[in-house]
Amino acid sequence: MERLPGFRDFYPEPLPHQDVWSADTRTYIFDAWRSVARRYCFREYDGPPLEPLELYTTKSGEEIVGQLYNFTDKGDRAVALRPEMTPTLARMVAAHARNYRKPIKWFAIPQLFRYERQQKGRLREHFQFNADIFGETDPAADAELIALLIDSLRALKLTAADFVIRLSSRDAWREFFKRGVGSAECGVEREYEFYQIIDKLAREDPAQTNSKLKALGFSLDAVNEFIAAGKPTAELDLILNNLSARGLAEFVKIDYNVIRGLAYYTGVVFEAFDKKGEFRAIAGGGRYDNLVKIISGGKVDLPGLGFGMGDVVLTELLKARGLLPPLNAHLHAFCLIEDEALRPASLKLIHDLREAGLTVDYSFVPTKPDKQFKRALELNAAFTVKLERTSTGEFALKVKNLKTREERVVDTARAAAFLLADK
Amino acid sequence: MERLPGFRDFYPEPLPHQDVWSADTRTYIFDAWRSVARRYCFREYDGPPLEPLELYTTKSGEEIVGQLYNFTDKGDRAVALRPEMTPTLARMVAAHARNYRKPIKWFAIPQLFRYERQQKGRLREHFQFNADIFGETDPAADAELIALLIDSLRALKLTAADFVIRLSSRDAWREFFKRGVGSAECGVEREYEFYQIIDKLAREDPAQTNSKLKALGFSLDAVNEFIAAGKPTAELDLILNNLSARGLAEFVKIDYNVIRGLAYYTGVVFEAFDKKGEFRAIAGGGRYDNLVKIISGGKVDLPGLGFGMGDVVLTELLKARGLLPPLNAHLHAFCLIEDEALRPASLKLIHDLREAGLTVDYSFVPTKPDKQFKRALELNAAFTVKLERTSTGEFALKVKNLKTREERVVDTARAAAFLLADK
Repeated sequence: MERLPGFRDFYPEPLPHQDVWSADTRTYIFDAWRSVARRYCFREYDGPPLEPLELYTTKSGEEIVGQLYNFTDKGDRAVALRPEMTPTLARMVAAHARNYRKPIKWFAIPQLFRYERQQKGRLREHFQFNADIFGETDPAADAELIALLIDSLRALKLTAADFVIRLSSRDAWREFFKRGVGSAECGVEREYEFYQIIDKLAREDPAQTNSKLKALGFSLDAVNEFIAAGKPTAELDLILNNLSARGLAEFVKIDYNVIRGLAYYTGVVFEAFDKKGEFRAIAGGGRYDNLVKIISGGKVDLPGLGFGMGDVVLTELLKARGLLPPLNAHLHAFCLIEDEALRPASLKLIHDLREAGLTVDYSFVPTKPDKQFKRALELNAAFTVKLERTSTGEFALKVKNLKTREERVVDTARAAAFLLADK
Repeated sequence: MERLPGFRDFYPEPLPHQDVWSADTRTYIFDAWRSVARRYCFREYDGPPLEPLELYTTKSGEEIVGQLYNFTDKGDRAVALRPEMTPTLARMVAAHARNYRKPIKWFAIPQLFRYERQQKGRLREHFQFNADIFGETDPAADAELIALLIDSLRALKLTAADFVIRLSSRDAWREFFKRGVGSAECGVEREYEFYQIIDKLAREDPAQTNSKLKALGFSLDAVNEFIAAGKPTAELDLILNNLSARGLAEFVKIDYNVIRGLAYYTGVVFEAFDKKGEFRAIAGGGRYDNLVKIISGGKVDLPGLGFGMGDVVLTELLKARGLLPPLNAHLHAFCLIEDEALRPASLKLIHDLREAGLTVDYSFVPTKPDKQFKRALELNAAFTVKLERTSTGEFALKVKNLKTREERVVDTARAAAFLLADK
């Protein structure tokens, strides 16, 4: 029996097959995300992987349904596996915003799902690090969020040589757009249509883009000039200065090619890219000051901003740059049981060492000493520990460092401390 | 907009409403599960939350479909949200068993889903700690698994006064059943039917149970006698001795009332219960030596055993016993910015402290000093840190311990070390 196409199995390393993913790499990445988010005082939350379909159509319109895992449940509800976390988060924040002091800084690592018929062979699920701030309109919040994004990537040993955050602004584009509004072709209601054209700039044929722009009263030349000038807005200047003060200037640049596809962004938007341009965007985000209001049906009005970073492109990038550490099994100690009469005492020793926080393994059944030793090496044990009976009938504990091959007799009561200290 | 019935929102503490769950409690429990599993040298894996429906019907028959979140995807595949992890695990192990040395010791913390129409108000998802061992028939593996279960609960500060593992055996019941086989009423093919009756013993009317048993040629009296005697099999004796050697004897007892509902168990079975009998089972598991063979269509034959422990009953139990620690925000330091001219230098300080692993927060925008200090207290900061300009134009860093209210001037370069040491 096979898993569904587009889904992943995560196995412990060393990986048995190229077709599967590493559970250890996933843990390594999740741990980095969590630890940086916590240092930034973001608190973790989570919501249901299954939500009412309406949560997504309210925000993005009916056309999104074609990309969802949606179905009717046994209670006749239209439901969908979550394709992104922001609507769930906006729903949660709207429900209890008044119980939390602002600014609210939250993160989550949800698994997200998209069913796109045309993309055979592409993944239909991924994990995404989501970090969001609510209740602060000042660009200082945007800078904090971008600094978190940068440090999340730095925690995985990526440097300014590997990635850059391209910083842009819907406000800057709105100013540009307004210049054209009022012409015969362009009413203010066509703003999002204009952003969609900009979003496809790099991917679409210039002639086609130009004719689309002309239909709205703009020219490709004017657009290209605006991008080339890349003049930061006052808000972007504040963000750049804030990031410079932190020592993070080299990780960001203004790039008005970035505008983000989603309808709900309102202000600063940004994307993280690998510098060699080999991969799709590593992460993306921005301000969505109206979303909570929309999701709450007008009841709660709270500015918000956030980013999402998926595990798939990031894992590919880390692999390509040789930044995934070896994540095979590793033990503090493997307990050798060479005399079966000492198995009960050995089990007690193993239990005591584990109780003290050490990772310890052993052979379940009587096994030849050389096979036990081989197993200790396979599992990358730092030490072997072995109980022996002395001539006076007492237990002696022999501890062997598998790197130096040095062997010592250690007091059983002090074994855990010895193994932890001499690691 | 509301979440779906039976699903949970997880919020950071302090919780805003009794209707939501604590993301911090969830993290506390997951961390305990992971850390004990790793000390026991279990490796983490994961699989898809969505699987082919067939994966569940193969093992449990068509009747399970009534309890599933199943639907037809846009590619016309019959699929289901996973109701349990074992079939996925058996599929994964069967696919790559030869690439891993035995015994295989793996764990996962999947979210599982059940749609049961009749149980309005009950949860339709939960998280479950799953630990499994493959490739070892010796009861030493059963003992290792049960020890892990005990230590997972002990890591959450539950004691022998709080819970007990009820240990039973399908082998013991099979022996009992065989005595009746050959009578007019009972053929060997009715074994599982017999187990189903035993599984419902405590919940069903004795008269009804008795008539069901009689239809198979057994009497309730004989069954009750067998349970009351509670004579351990040779295998159970080995397990009890093994657990005694580890110092865990007080956490287990033989109880043949336990037989487990699922069809696939073959040998030792067990359940963890709170001692006051206030809650449903905390965990359950056992041997399933034929499952990998069934799932792999006969291609791979590998003995297996495992347990599952859900987060819902466990959280209720920990709450009832007062064993959930306060999990509110807590910071190493809150940075006070009282002179806006020092904001850039303060941002650098904050960044350096976070880089050193400290949890640090601050006010995004100019804020009155007393309000900043109040915020530091609200966030349970251990220290406030504050840059000041000295008369010679240098920076001075003032560090205040919020418990002792003692204030000191600390060298900026040594701030992180000072805060970590004096926590």
